[in-house]
Amino acid sequence: MGAKAFFFDVFGTVVDWREGVAREARTILHPLGHDLIWTAFADAWRAEYQPGMEEIRSGRLPFAKLDVVHARMLERILPAFGLSDISDDTKRALVLAWHRLDAWPDSSRGIAMLRKHALVAPVSNGNVSLMAALARRNNFHWDAILGAEFSRDYKPKPDVYLSACAAFDLSPADCMMVAAHSDDLAAAAACGLQTGFVARPNEKGPGKGESRPTVAVDVAGNDMVDLAQKIFG
Amino acid sequence: MGAKAFFFDVFGTVVDWREGVAREARTILHPLGHDLIWTAFADAWRAEYQPGMEEIRSGRLPFAKLDVVHARMLERILPAFGLSDISDDTKRALVLAWHRLDAWPDSSRGIAMLRKHALVAPVSNGNVSLMAALARRNNFHWDAILGAEFSRDYKPKPDVYLSACAAFDLSPADCMMVAAHSDDLAAAAACGLQTGFVARPNEKGPGKGESRPTVAVDVAGNDMVDLAQKIFG
Repeated sequence: MGAKAFFFDVFGTVVDWREGVAREARTILHPLGHDLIWTAFADAWRAEYQPGMEEIRSGRLPFAKLDVVHARMLERILPAFGLSDISDDTKRALVLAWHRLDAWPDSSRGIAMLRKHALVAPVSNGNVSLMAALARRNNFHWDAILGAEFSRDYKPKPDVYLSACAAFDLSPADCMMVAAHSDDLAAAAACGLQTGFVARPNEKGPGKGESRPTVAVDVAGNDMVDLAQKIFG
Repeated sequence: MGAKAFFFDVFGTVVDWREGVAREARTILHPLGHDLIWTAFADAWRAEYQPGMEEIRSGRLPFAKLDVVHARMLERILPAFGLSDISDDTKRALVLAWHRLDAWPDSSRGIAMLRKHALVAPVSNGNVSLMAALARRNNFHWDAILGAEFSRDYKPKPDVYLSACAAFDLSPADCMMVAAHSDDLAAAAACGLQTGFVARPNEKGPGKGESRPTVAVDVAGNDMVDLAQKIFG
């Protein structure tokens, strides 16, 4: 076990998108007179995630960074929340809510522990500016920002994983994908990467995240620190 | 004056390629019985830099990362130094010399000073793994690694500068290119970026670097710390 590089899924694995989006949406929309169930708004927005990326993965639309996809996804849910009339400025502010998410309490320390032994980089579908903003906010020290914007396609397409390995001049077998999502890990394993699962049981609401992987993984941790300890002692 | 992001040329501006390549080449080749003028070897290798990249900028060859271009450049100079017979392993070791360069004494501190106020990223022709290795060795904390491998072309092509601005969601006018080379700054200015010159008078040998820019720049510093102080006081 062990790897020369660790690649991280970010939304859900490293940061808590649900509480963060709910909080930021409330901060932006409540002063404008809107009163929603904020976590339901976050859940509805996130539910458009796979359909939004599939337009690009399938080739129906050219590559666009996730901020652009988030804006398209937002348009689709506004009517259901009585928000069809919000201004373009408000929409832009909402898209930037994803730049202001907080990490799970163990993430920064766990990433730093892994970085003592290997290269670390996000291999997220999030764009460079979004990853850089989350790193600043939460004190992550990445060696590089890889992932969707670097490879110009979205996970789980193989090139997103393989281009990250190639950027570090490493074979997939020398790299480990770290994620709280079995489907991400299955796709990485199919590309030859090692896999590390991190439990985020409350990612999608209390008890609605993955407590354990549904696929075989090389290592599983209760959180990022536990994962690092299991790998490097 | 000021900027929301600072982009850095690396070879010559942030790190001393000449002394570093000379030292590493000696470490690799001297035990094999070779005795060269090591700085002349470094100079000859670097002299192939623009021709090597021009094959890609012109479209004659597809994009390849700088490690690959460095290997091609190396092949061209081996005969002149009596090195035609070195092994492939030795050639690979020499290419990795560029991953082990030391920063100028002021670089790490100057970059950290600028990072307190703005995003910082290399916009170099060097590839991601090379930039990550130099950052580890010299304690640079970049927000992202942008530049040639991200944009799949080489400076001074406009897209290398413009794709860096776009990655950070910034207009070129909000970004400053920092370099010790007037031609790099002229190309960045033509794309609308601000320009910061850093004097590296000994980059190509004593007195053979640029002491002052030959083009108009927004700010010029005697070193990276001086530049940061001139911009942010």
